[in-house]
Amino acid sequence: MGDLPSGWEMRDKPPSLFRRFDFERYADTRGFLDALAALAEETGIHPEKINFGSTYVNITFEAADDAELTEGDYTVAARINDLYRSKAD
Amino acid sequence: MGDLPSGWEMRDKPPSLFRRFDFERYADTRGFLDALAALAEETGIHPEKINFGSTYVNITFEAADDAELTEGDYTVAARINDLYRSKAD
Repeated sequence: MGDLPSGWEMRDKPPSLFRRFDFERYADTRGFLDALAALAEETGIHPEKINFGSTYVNITFEAADDAELTEGDYTVAARINDLYRSKAD
Repeated sequence: MGDLPSGWEMRDKPPSLFRRFDFERYADTRGFLDALAALAEETGIHPEKINFGSTYVNITFEAADDAELTEGDYTVAARINDLYRSKAD
């Protein structure tokens, strides 16, 4: 697999890739969620779980059937970091 | 407080209103999330936690500071049911 993208942590049972993203205001959270949806549609890869409130978004990629995370999961996780950085500009 | 809207359950610590919504396809889930965001912007009331995957959305309203849920929380929960019904048409 690729390197662990910055800020993400590995979890187990099932093998998962997790990161929390924080925002100043709901409008920023909402913009990030929209960009995330567009990325999922572009890549066909959807994080298994997204958990959000007005100023945070928690994202988890999970391996299917307790197998391994895919190269695509890592790639999309890294691209989510890019979305977050561009929102922070 | 108002009546418990259909399909929602009460939870405790803090007092919460919870419901799970299921969808056939990601596109339906996405449409529901968009409608939900528009409703939050219209009413100024945001569920404290929204948890979703490609075919489900879990929504939780939580009382602030362990106080009580507000009339507004119940009203918005009922309107979310309407959104769900209209998506199912």
